[in-house]
Amino acid sequence: MEPVNVGIIGLGNVGLGTLEILWENWEQNTQKLGFPLWLRAICSRTLEGKALPAGMERVIRTTDWREVVTNPEIDIVCELVGGTGVAREIIEAAIANGKSVVTANKELMALHGPEIWRKAAQANVNLAMEASVAGGIPIHTVLREGISGDRLSALFGILNGTSNFILTEIEKRGADFGEVLAEAQRLGYAEADPTADIDGFDARSKLAILVALMFGKSVAPSEIYTEGIRRITPFDFEYARQLGYTIRLLCGARRTPEGLLLSVRPALLPRSTILAGVSGAYNAIWVLGDYGQDTFYYGRGAGPKPTGVAVVSDLMRVAREIRAGSHERVSPFAHAALEPTHPLPLDSMKTAYYLRFRVKDRPGIIASLSRVLADKGISLDAVLQVPCDTKDNLPFVITVEPSEESAIREAMAAMATLEFMVEPPLALPMEKGL
Amino acid sequence: MEPVNVGIIGLGNVGLGTLEILWENWEQNTQKLGFPLWLRAICSRTLEGKALPAGMERVIRTTDWREVVTNPEIDIVCELVGGTGVAREIIEAAIANGKSVVTANKELMALHGPEIWRKAAQANVNLAMEASVAGGIPIHTVLREGISGDRLSALFGILNGTSNFILTEIEKRGADFGEVLAEAQRLGYAEADPTADIDGFDARSKLAILVALMFGKSVAPSEIYTEGIRRITPFDFEYARQLGYTIRLLCGARRTPEGLLLSVRPALLPRSTILAGVSGAYNAIWVLGDYGQDTFYYGRGAGPKPTGVAVVSDLMRVAREIRAGSHERVSPFAHAALEPTHPLPLDSMKTAYYLRFRVKDRPGIIASLSRVLADKGISLDAVLQVPCDTKDNLPFVITVEPSEESAIREAMAAMATLEFMVEPPLALPMEKGL
Repeated sequence: MEPVNVGIIGLGNVGLGTLEILWENWEQNTQKLGFPLWLRAICSRTLEGKALPAGMERVIRTTDWREVVTNPEIDIVCELVGGTGVAREIIEAAIANGKSVVTANKELMALHGPEIWRKAAQANVNLAMEASVAGGIPIHTVLREGISGDRLSALFGILNGTSNFILTEIEKRGADFGEVLAEAQRLGYAEADPTADIDGFDARSKLAILVALMFGKSVAPSEIYTEGIRRITPFDFEYARQLGYTIRLLCGARRTPEGLLLSVRPALLPRSTILAGVSGAYNAIWVLGDYGQDTFYYGRGAGPKPTGVAVVSDLMRVAREIRAGSHERVSPFAHAALEPTHPLPLDSMKTAYYLRFRVKDRPGIIASLSRVLADKGISLDAVLQVPCDTKDNLPFVITVEPSEESAIREAMAAMATLEFMVEPPLALPMEKGL
Repeated sequence: MEPVNVGIIGLGNVGLGTLEILWENWEQNTQKLGFPLWLRAICSRTLEGKALPAGMERVIRTTDWREVVTNPEIDIVCELVGGTGVAREIIEAAIANGKSVVTANKELMALHGPEIWRKAAQANVNLAMEASVAGGIPIHTVLREGISGDRLSALFGILNGTSNFILTEIEKRGADFGEVLAEAQRLGYAEADPTADIDGFDARSKLAILVALMFGKSVAPSEIYTEGIRRITPFDFEYARQLGYTIRLLCGARRTPEGLLLSVRPALLPRSTILAGVSGAYNAIWVLGDYGQDTFYYGRGAGPKPTGVAVVSDLMRVAREIRAGSHERVSPFAHAALEPTHPLPLDSMKTAYYLRFRVKDRPGIIASLSRVLADKGISLDAVLQVPCDTKDNLPFVITVEPSEESAIREAMAAMATLEFMVEPPLALPMEKGL
């Protein structure tokens, strides 16, 4: 039977993983599809020195992506360059040339996905992006089709493997953030510029994509409340443990009658919840629906091969659409149309909080902190202090009853100015309901 | 836009759950699909007294399924009768009349799925069966499309909610099997005839379907090694706990160079594995692939609404295929063709074992048991005994190093004849690798 032909542009880690799976596993793919899915062209700026599988003589090699997107033999262009610059040019040129597109590009899809999809739909070609969120976990497929009959109400996810790896290492070894980050960089788990991962920007792009899939709403990633993990210390894990919790960078999306509450921030999770058990570079997603209630998805969040599986599975899906002559059966964002929206401010959300302080010890500290909390109408729940011999920089914790976010923020700002504070206090939500 | 029309046959729990979701959630469904998905007919032998949503005056009601499958307005027949008798007639008549079919019928699909699918393909209609395995977990979608690019090597699942509920209750309360079963029956978690659930037959049908989806092989459910949970006691959970394990009814499928190793049986799972945390009526599936490595899926295994979500999601998928004019884009079994196969005998599989005995206490028991084990080439690992005051019926446990199944079985048979045995010994595999 007539093959469907693929051109891969971009041979970084994910590109090489995709290429290897496509090349090695062609026999099984053919058995599943009923027709061959061929790798027809590869493109990279630096083809020299790439370790490619043997026997690829008939595959076109080029350093110019235009040769791929204009090649009439190519049916699907697989964009694995990343970023929002040339990647966008590649995808739009491919669409303009009547090619379907498979991409792993979360940043581009979170920022411009709806526009790009509109162009694809107009050109009667397909767009697929399973690999853009949570590597080896097929969460797009699940939300787009698997549980499409549910009315979803919330999602909680661990969507950044690098920060989860760092948090897990701080927890396991009691090492400081800086030390663990340096090691993660040495091991290749974190990039030289780690900002996107540890400050939550990578996770918020992924959350924006999942929100589109869940609710049919497009949200600008920059409008999602985002806080990173730089301030988490071994002390925080010790206090969390005493409270029966652990700490993870949690992505949350909640539907309310007024709109969507979205956040990416470190949070305390009860040890008993299945999300708390997610360690190292794994990702996990917990989805709540009005009918199906809770489902949970877990797997490797990154890596050439797990992400390559997502890309190849997309290629197979798009190849089937092409063979069936059906170009736009299911929108990549699950809904037939996306509606732009702004997330609600978190101000009136009520959450229990863990407040961690570092102070110069002297009498009356608890009294003055309690006064600030009382002024803002916040009820104190517990005061914890682990033994520590530095009177100059003493960490301790206050937990408070569910309180409005705005009150918590005002209290934190007022407390930050107290003269015994060594650094501004840290506030982490306690997700008791998970 | 022209609607796609559905007829539901069978209004038991799942039928009513499906009807409610389809009826209540039509607006969101239309937004996702871009066209309406209408409930056009319902059929049940006992329509009188069913609590139906208000406003269903225009929906055809009948007690004769033939009126649904022959109605030219109906596009998709939703078979929720269950069993292998009339359900098969309904499905085959629907196909013969050019209707696509959505079913939740695991027993029928495990036994005759490949033949029924062949008929559907010949008639150019679709067949979907997400709801046949693991209720609210979209495991069909995941295996059929989400991770279709992987080469899968193994799956371990908890696929029967009733037996998982019973095991969890024995564990939590230290109550006996019979007592917990009676309570589960009172609560409606177990049926009056509980055989299908507690003896593993329900789970093995589901495993047969998953094996087809994973490997493209059709296996007769009766050829899968199956053992139920009737013999598990509170003592077993206590011993398991001491060893750092718990006990679950585990479905296992492993690909080996020689063929497939398949089993449904109670097993010891390390407490640290994510599967061990699956309690109550939940289901969970752990999938291993050569490329994507491990992914894990968890959710409610049954219940009208979680299962209804699976049915409605299938209806949406099939409705899209109908609107796209593409009848057979992805086979319900993931592969373009299924190959019949026989699972390997488990004989040469090497597993560590937990052996539990109940004996009339007297000197020399360990000596004679050790002799039997030594004769079969089995290495003893540990001997455990929890305090117990009944000398006449003393439970104790021996764990053994990984040994061939055939040697374990021979040893168990030889031990069963020893005169101090109160009942035949119980052997449970210890799944250390999970």
